[in-house]
Amino acid sequence: MNYQEQYQHYLVCVEQRLNTLRQDYWNTESKIADASFYSLLAGGKRVRAVLCMAVCDMLNGNEQLACEYAAAVEMLHCYSLIHDDLPCMDNDDFRRGKPSCHKAFGEAEALLAGDALLTQAFEVLAGAPAFNPQQNVDAVKCLSHAAGTRGMIWGQELDLRFENQSATEQQLQEIHKNKTGMLIDAAARLGAIAALADEATQRAISQYAFSIGLVFQIVDDVLDVTAAQETLGKPVGSDAENGKTTFVTLYGVSRSMEMAEKITQQACEELSRNFGMRAAFLQDLAKSLLQRKK
Amino acid sequence: MNYQEQYQHYLVCVEQRLNTLRQDYWNTESKIADASFYSLLAGGKRVRAVLCMAVCDMLNGNEQLACEYAAAVEMLHCYSLIHDDLPCMDNDDFRRGKPSCHKAFGEAEALLAGDALLTQAFEVLAGAPAFNPQQNVDAVKCLSHAAGTRGMIWGQELDLRFENQSATEQQLQEIHKNKTGMLIDAAARLGAIAALADEATQRAISQYAFSIGLVFQIVDDVLDVTAAQETLGKPVGSDAENGKTTFVTLYGVSRSMEMAEKITQQACEELSRNFGMRAAFLQDLAKSLLQRKK
Repeated sequence: MNYQEQYQHYLVCVEQRLNTLRQDYWNTESKIADASFYSLLAGGKRVRAVLCMAVCDMLNGNEQLACEYAAAVEMLHCYSLIHDDLPCMDNDDFRRGKPSCHKAFGEAEALLAGDALLTQAFEVLAGAPAFNPQQNVDAVKCLSHAAGTRGMIWGQELDLRFENQSATEQQLQEIHKNKTGMLIDAAARLGAIAALADEATQRAISQYAFSIGLVFQIVDDVLDVTAAQETLGKPVGSDAENGKTTFVTLYGVSRSMEMAEKITQQACEELSRNFGMRAAFLQDLAKSLLQRKK
Repeated sequence: MNYQEQYQHYLVCVEQRLNTLRQDYWNTESKIADASFYSLLAGGKRVRAVLCMAVCDMLNGNEQLACEYAAAVEMLHCYSLIHDDLPCMDNDDFRRGKPSCHKAFGEAEALLAGDALLTQAFEVLAGAPAFNPQQNVDAVKCLSHAAGTRGMIWGQELDLRFENQSATEQQLQEIHKNKTGMLIDAAARLGAIAALADEATQRAISQYAFSIGLVFQIVDDVLDVTAAQETLGKPVGSDAENGKTTFVTLYGVSRSMEMAEKITQQACEELSRNFGMRAAFLQDLAKSLLQRKK
């Protein structure tokens, strides 16, 4: 399989699982389920899910288990987007070219849909078909830590704090490491947990994951000023409008892209040293995140 | 130890643990931590935590583990109160006689504080000092199921649905079973899991838990019309004002209390049949919930 076919294979696995979650975990005739799945099934690149499955695959792990963990990561990510879009947070009316969850279903419903996806992510992890129960305990630890108060929520708090004041590069990196990096890292680690990887392997995976997480964010900042609204599916230039510090406000477009290229190259070389030929897909994934146009 | 001393013992255990959670799981200098612990340490009866610890104690289980599970239940419960009070939900300005979380810290902060407590509850469970990893997996399953889309969140949805239309007794019971009963049941079951109880024992515990959960709600409805605002710490008569169906609107105060007494008596008798003299504390707990004045 080439890169595109392999990506498609992972994508189909996780989309299928996301589509059956509703009947497994939600009541029929639930407006909160409608709101949850409106957002959860709105497409997107599923980078976190693909990363989880690809890491597990590279380490010869159990694909079914990785797919279950991947679904949980997507639920967690989706909850964070729904709550992030709420009026009291970023107040975004659109997400992926469609009205955001609270615009389509109401604020109370969006709040509960987010709470539901967060809660159910852990029920999915705890019920996953693991080889031993310790795997699922590790998976819950991994995801709750990454999504929690020393991870994503801490990133959200830093983001609020620096909304109307400029940040240094170090502060910006700290925000992104927590706001997006930790969950991307958790996705990769969950793939490693599904493959029963040892600590040293997990650390190598983690280093790669934080690198592509950072690149993802740099490219996001660049696209915010260079992409057309139709391509991106969300308003362009919203960062500058909000007075936010970004990699572009710190270094401009071309120096930012140079940084992103360098980080990607190092991550790919390191991966190659650790995993040889089997690292090919994750290397291509890193490059595609660098080159993405939306 | 008499009932009061035993209650106090459990309460001190869990309060101590709740007080050390901040240094274990939150960053210092976090406003979201301030908001979370403002609500989490606001006191209250800690019925769920005490129930968890008392069930474990009755079954000769590990107190330290039960205390950890109890802390997670209180975090979960606290998150639900914070989100429930938000303007888009019940829009309550007060909670336990103090400004509610969003009134004291702002809406975005309260939203994130709730998200944080929910997320960290699962990190606490996954990191609990269990005898074997399966216990923690069962604990995560138990709590996520009870708090999720076929439990508390479903209860919230039903509650929203029946906000401005009358409900039958069956519908009212369905709302309460999910909105409050499932989490009280989870608290009791977590105590049983901490004691490595078998399925039959867990079922007996569950029956008791749903009974006291229902009594708790009936008494809540009664107190809403009979208690003075100073005693209750929240506005009185808010149910009637909102046009909500309650046990009082269906049956009046005295028939509601008769129902509550009968359910309590049956639950106590059943518990005695199953656990003999060791059931004494849980029987007293049931009676105190029936007789509470706030």
